[in-house]
Amino acid sequence: MQGRRLINGFKLTRVGVTGVKKQITVRRKGAHGCLNCVIDVYVDLPSSQRGSHLSRNLEVISDAVESSVSHPVGGLEILCRDVCKELLERHDYATYAEVSIVADYFLDRTGPSGKISKESFKLMAQAYGRRGNGLRKMIGAQAIGMTACPCAMETVRGMVNGNVTVEGSMPTISHNQRNISTLMVEVPEEFDVEANDLIEILEDSFSSPTFEILKRTDEARVVINAHNNPKFVEDVVRDILSQALDKYKDLPDEVVITARSESEESIHKHNAFAERITTLGELRDRSASEGTENDRESGCS
Amino acid sequence: MQGRRLINGFKLTRVGVTGVKKQITVRRKGAHGCLNCVIDVYVDLPSSQRGSHLSRNLEVISDAVESSVSHPVGGLEILCRDVCKELLERHDYATYAEVSIVADYFLDRTGPSGKISKESFKLMAQAYGRRGNGLRKMIGAQAIGMTACPCAMETVRGMVNGNVTVEGSMPTISHNQRNISTLMVEVPEEFDVEANDLIEILEDSFSSPTFEILKRTDEARVVINAHNNPKFVEDVVRDILSQALDKYKDLPDEVVITARSESEESIHKHNAFAERITTLGELRDRSASEGTENDRESGCS
Amino acid sequence: MQGRRLINGFKLTRVGVTGVKKQITVRRKGAHGCLNCVIDVYVDLPSSQRGSHLSRNLEVISDAVESSVSHPVGGLEILCRDVCKELLERHDYATYAEVSIVADYFLDRTGPSGKISKESFKLMAQAYGRRGNGLRKMIGAQAIGMTACPCAMETVRGMVNGNVTVEGSMPTISHNQRNISTLMVEVPEEFDVEANDLIEILEDSFSSPTFEILKRTDEARVVINAHNNPKFVEDVVRDILSQALDKYKDLPDEVVITARSESEESIHKHNAFAERITTLGELRDRSASEGTENDRESGCS
Amino acid sequence: MQGRRLINGFKLTRVGVTGVKKQITVRRKGAHGCLNCVIDVYVDLPSSQRGSHLSRNLEVISDAVESSVSHPVGGLEILCRDVCKELLERHDYATYAEVSIVADYFLDRTGPSGKISKESFKLMAQAYGRRGNGLRKMIGAQAIGMTACPCAMETVRGMVNGNVTVEGSMPTISHNQRNISTLMVEVPEEFDVEANDLIEILEDSFSSPTFEILKRTDEARVVINAHNNPKFVEDVVRDILSQALDKYKDLPDEVVITARSESEESIHKHNAFAERITTLGELRDRSASEGTENDRESGCS
Repeated sequence: MQGRRLINGFKLTRVGVTGVKKQITVRRKGAHGCLNCVIDVYVDLPSSQRGSHLSRNLEVISDAVESSVSHPVGGLEILCRDVCKELLERHDYATYAEVSIVADYFLDRTGPSGKISKESFKLMAQAYGRRGNGLRKMIGAQAIGMTACPCAMETVRGMVNGNVTVEGSMPTISHNQRNISTLMVEVPEEFDVEANDLIEILEDSFSSPTFEILKRTDEARVVINAHNNPKFVEDVVRDILSQALDKYKDLPDEVVITARSESEESIHKHNAFAERITTLGELRDRSASEGTENDRESGCS
Repeated sequence: MQGRRLINGFKLTRVGVTGVKKQITVRRKGAHGCLNCVIDVYVDLPSSQRGSHLSRNLEVISDAVESSVSHPVGGLEILCRDVCKELLERHDYATYAEVSIVADYFLDRTGPSGKISKESFKLMAQAYGRRGNGLRKMIGAQAIGMTACPCAMETVRGMVNGNVTVEGSMPTISHNQRNISTLMVEVPEEFDVEANDLIEILEDSFSSPTFEILKRTDEARVVINAHNNPKFVEDVVRDILSQALDKYKDLPDEVVITARSESEESIHKHNAFAERITTLGELRDRSASEGTENDRESGCS
Repeated sequence: MQGRRLINGFKLTRVGVTGVKKQITVRRKGAHGCLNCVIDVYVDLPSSQRGSHLSRNLEVISDAVESSVSHPVGGLEILCRDVCKELLERHDYATYAEVSIVADYFLDRTGPSGKISKESFKLMAQAYGRRGNGLRKMIGAQAIGMTACPCAMETVRGMVNGNVTVEGSMPTISHNQRNISTLMVEVPEEFDVEANDLIEILEDSFSSPTFEILKRTDEARVVINAHNNPKFVEDVVRDILSQALDKYKDLPDEVVITARSESEESIHKHNAFAERITTLGELRDRSASEGTENDRESGCS
Repeated sequence: MQGRRLINGFKLTRVGVTGVKKQITVRRKGAHGCLNCVIDVYVDLPSSQRGSHLSRNLEVISDAVESSVSHPVGGLEILCRDVCKELLERHDYATYAEVSIVADYFLDRTGPSGKISKESFKLMAQAYGRRGNGLRKMIGAQAIGMTACPCAMETVRGMVNGNVTVEGSMPTISHNQRNISTLMVEVPEEFDVEANDLIEILEDSFSSPTFEILKRTDEARVVINAHNNPKFVEDVVRDILSQALDKYKDLPDEVVITARSESEESIHKHNAFAERITTLGELRDRSASEGTENDRESGCS
């Protein structure tokens, strides 16, 4: 029925299944674990065929999951690529395949006073490509942290007895809030990108990382650190990009990179958002690419 | 088919439809508008009958909506009660009916510098009751605001150069965050409760209300106000209750009241939550009901 | 700061933290695994105290999680109870504690043609109680299945050439849809309730369970089975209750049981919903409790 | 502060605010109403500037909303374009602007027996563009309907007494389910696209549209219609495209069009998905663009 010939049909860009929940066993640098994943897979469909054989998608996923039990995958992005390959194998009418995975992830983090707690994150992975042209694969992570606003801080300082503040003592108040940031990096064949490194970059880019357990003085230190390090969402994204440039010196110019930061503003009911989608090559070329004549001294907002 | 007789069946507590989207026209104190609502309705089902006649629920809702166009309802809680009555009318096998509505709501609010902006809220309404026993109806509201933590503020003050702070000048830094609070009050027949008053109570209970548009100095004022008024979620709930006691002096003791506050903690990935579900009578009796011997001086957290 | 004495305060019903994500290691009947959990915990707060020590909640959760690595818990409901006990221990001002957990869960299921696939479910667990009065604990499960409507089937049969249908051959068409059902059962001390049994009861109560991978004839068999077994949400709930009565003959009368079924109706934009919250004792007494005079022959809807 | 000059900074692709809730007054072909909208707006940011002036975004939105009260907008896509223009005006450092809106929407629909009911939909609108290059604007709609699977129907017919079915009588059973489909069409200047037409196209592309109120025989007719018109998600997307080609004969070739369909499969826990993103020109050229040698007779799934 799906294979039925169509006259005068339309080709379709993506046909597949979404929201498939599976557990995938991963082993990486000695660490070994089981990730709870939500998986979407797609292939394209030529104009001459009525339907895509959707159950083949589930077979491919299921085989990959089963096989991961005895032979843990080296990373979610590798699984995505392998599933893509297999999709093109089993859907011989398809010229394109795409797979994306989102997974819950947990890591030990050390709080300000040295106490270790288990924090939760998300991993994201993706692979896609056209038959014969090679597949591209990406690994990403999402972390929750904290931002304190530099603009409100400056305005408050100007308004309230600014001269009382002694250099190096109490930071000025500002609004701060929960921030959700994402970094996704393409992983070319023969290269490797650690999801744990992405999470470190994200946490280093917030005003402060956040922690489940904070006793009195730990809590105060997180607050002080955040206020000594006030950041716009724009700053968070630039700091992610800057660290990624540093960390991934060896990756080639054509590697695609996405950095995104969203602050659930405490003083507003809406969110603040910043994003850059680019390649490492464009980032490396930044000094050349744009003039600096754009200097301005505009008002806060 | 639904009316088929069952031998040895089980009665069911609630049978109905959920997620019905409708626009309801409301007129109240001169204000007139159309609310986008999501509606759930239920009746019970005796053990002797196979199914409830679900399409009657939709007819009742649809009739109420249609009729509101020419005769706007006086409030969502009144609509809930009227729909409950009609449900018991049309489901003659039912002994219980329940209706709840959540609606988007917009109100003009005046920012710190006097600028007016349109802010978004949620209204909630509910009615339920047993045939012959009368129906109870409730009106509620949900608002988004801001809390600043008093505990972190105190600890920071003790740690950082506390003595520099001059009385009346710069408040001490703390973590602050988006807070979502709810107040729901029963409305006995012959009484009236304004949703707009509930929203005012909620906004007065935050460390500060929040606004869509804040220019530089407005933003600073919101931040300063919040830090001059630090609150736990527990404080927010108590302040809601306290204002409600004041505002609803005329309502009888048996009136049920729910107050709830949830802070999307900026220093944690989880939320802080506080709630009180009680009656006005119990609240009025508070001085009598519990001793104060519970005095303690415990650590922050 | 939280321990500060309040004069003329209000007690709070529930104060705590919500949305804490943790991995918990469970071992049960030989099976051993790691569950990704979202945890909410609460205690009450006396009127004389300003705040609850929220970080203690996280310490209790974290200790329980850590300890589960070396000593896997026997079930999520047992973990809930143990966390409740510890909460009352560490919040000495509290008289009430409550813990609830939702977890992703995976089980092998055998499809119509004998093929095994991994299907996803949810587990739910809860414990709560007042100091000195003992704690109650519950285990629950949520499953996704399929319902086919018996009413539309009958009406269609009457309308379309009803006499062509040969007894025992092709079932009549109807609308069918995704259904989400839940069963939660209290587990008294000295008793045991298996989450896997709850899932079996749920899957046996649908018109048909559903599967990730269905080849051509499997798919047809699921469709045929569902149409040979048409069910309202009301039928699903009653069949859950009936099986639970059978399965839990040994559990005492006071055991609380919740059964719920929601169909994402294919012919409507809203859902159909049915629920019973009761005790095993009330269910056992059903023949005595209600007359059967309610026999009627009403229209479909 | 935002205007501060950066040396060696990175430009950002999109910086803005998300989740702004507003009511917008629209008048179109005599119809007049107030739409509850969620709005996201972005501009880009040069590498030389620290931050974007986010409050200007809210001012632009607020001005547009205010002005719509006295001068209702002609369509959400027009509002998006006007807001984009104004964003480029007020953020003089920006070279790119983007606005998107999602709104709840209600329309009268006539059920199978002629009864009129109010059904709920979503509208989507978007505009974006680079300074000096003109802006592109799109209007879209999302509708919920029903699909019945042609493949399961055929397999069942082969398995169960296939020869009993008399031509023109009872359709064969299959699985059917809730389907959510979307159509979005670019609207060039000097042209007009009606959101109501998009909804009609969507509803004509399902196996059957769905309705809030269906009495016994209406319900049966919807079920029969759907089974007489079985569709894969692929069929739904192609039928949307085909109708759009017909309807928008006058629109130029470069107009971008997106069609998407997702079925919440009743026999699976995951969804089936199909999508085409293309231009009217590519669609018109379909007979030329792909051979039909891809004829195959493959298995169901």
